[in-house]
Amino acid sequence: MRGKLITVEGIDGSGKSTLCAGLSEHFADRLVALREPGGVGLSEQIRVLVKDPELEISAQAEALLFAAARAQLVSEKLRPLLDSGRSVLLDRFVDSSLAYQGAGRGLGIAAVQAINELATAGLTPDLTLLIRVTPELAAQRMSEDDRLERAGSDFFADVTQAYDRLAAAESGRFVVLDGALPKQEILAAAVKVVSGAL
Amino acid sequence: MRGKLITVEGIDGSGKSTLCAGLSEHFADRLVALREPGGVGLSEQIRVLVKDPELEISAQAEALLFAAARAQLVSEKLRPLLDSGRSVLLDRFVDSSLAYQGAGRGLGIAAVQAINELATAGLTPDLTLLIRVTPELAAQRMSEDDRLERAGSDFFADVTQAYDRLAAAESGRFVVLDGALPKQEILAAAVKVVSGAL
Repeated sequence: MRGKLITVEGIDGSGKSTLCAGLSEHFADRLVALREPGGVGLSEQIRVLVKDPELEISAQAEALLFAAARAQLVSEKLRPLLDSGRSVLLDRFVDSSLAYQGAGRGLGIAAVQAINELATAGLTPDLTLLIRVTPELAAQRMSEDDRLERAGSDFFADVTQAYDRLAAAESGRFVVLDGALPKQEILAAAVKVVSGAL
Repeated sequence: MRGKLITVEGIDGSGKSTLCAGLSEHFADRLVALREPGGVGLSEQIRVLVKDPELEISAQAEALLFAAARAQLVSEKLRPLLDSGRSVLLDRFVDSSLAYQGAGRGLGIAAVQAINELATAGLTPDLTLLIRVTPELAAQRMSEDDRLERAGSDFFADVTQAYDRLAAAESGRFVVLDGALPKQEILAAAVKVVSGAL
């Protein structure tokens, strides 16, 4: 039986990485935890590039780099894991590109979707957990050292809105979690949903 | 007045780089010479990745990486140069991706064209010089240290055929040069065509 692909989405400062760590610990024997961009050699190298504050990177180049990292992760690791029956917990996937580059950086959802078709070869998540927080709350929690995080509050308002629309458009795949709740409550809610999916 | 974009295309071993060096010397005061992938910080970093023989890179990831390098070159350097009236000689551009990844690696011309629309934002060459050689002749001239070059002779037969089709489909933009001729004759022919375009 094919494994399940479970993705976690949310803006920087939403508590996404904390939730992924909690889920990864709770389901240690049932989920392989991976993150984007990364997970395989090429994609970790691309991660270094997109996080380098010295490099000038256009919105277009950024979207294409994330898609390249995704393509390699899908073909080298994700597909083989799922095909072998393992389930995967993935910190960010296509929805991040649609929200961040498509909406936040203004490339348009359709254009970013088009390049990601080549990257994913039709692979879509079975379940997507979206942690919803206001941009204001997220900003209080954010670190300063990520280039993407410096893009300003209008940016995060656009990304938040795009996530909301994606979740509304695919309500069967998305489960929205309230990121203003205490960490343990968010984790407990997520554990319940993931248990159901596995 | 906008500058002219002149691209040079051909399979590995076609004599493309030699021709670019000759043209660059001849038109030193009239052309800025650039190469793909490269020309700006991010794109040179991507060049290092795609030429790393230790990295596993899928056809999809490769096409997206070349497009990312192209996107950054276009926005950071190519557009500004052309808009300021400078003409540019570019060693490889979109046609390379269509022929190599679209045909050679089997992703399909249409899929590769789609991702390159985001990368180029509609920028197309004013003139494209295609050096045509048989895969057999090219193989005799090739060095061993490029990952792309190790892809086998069927690969280069497909790439050669794709280049021929692209040139036939856009005969107004392409000028085909016979790569079997002596270097100096190819350069002389190219100088004539480029002079006319500038």
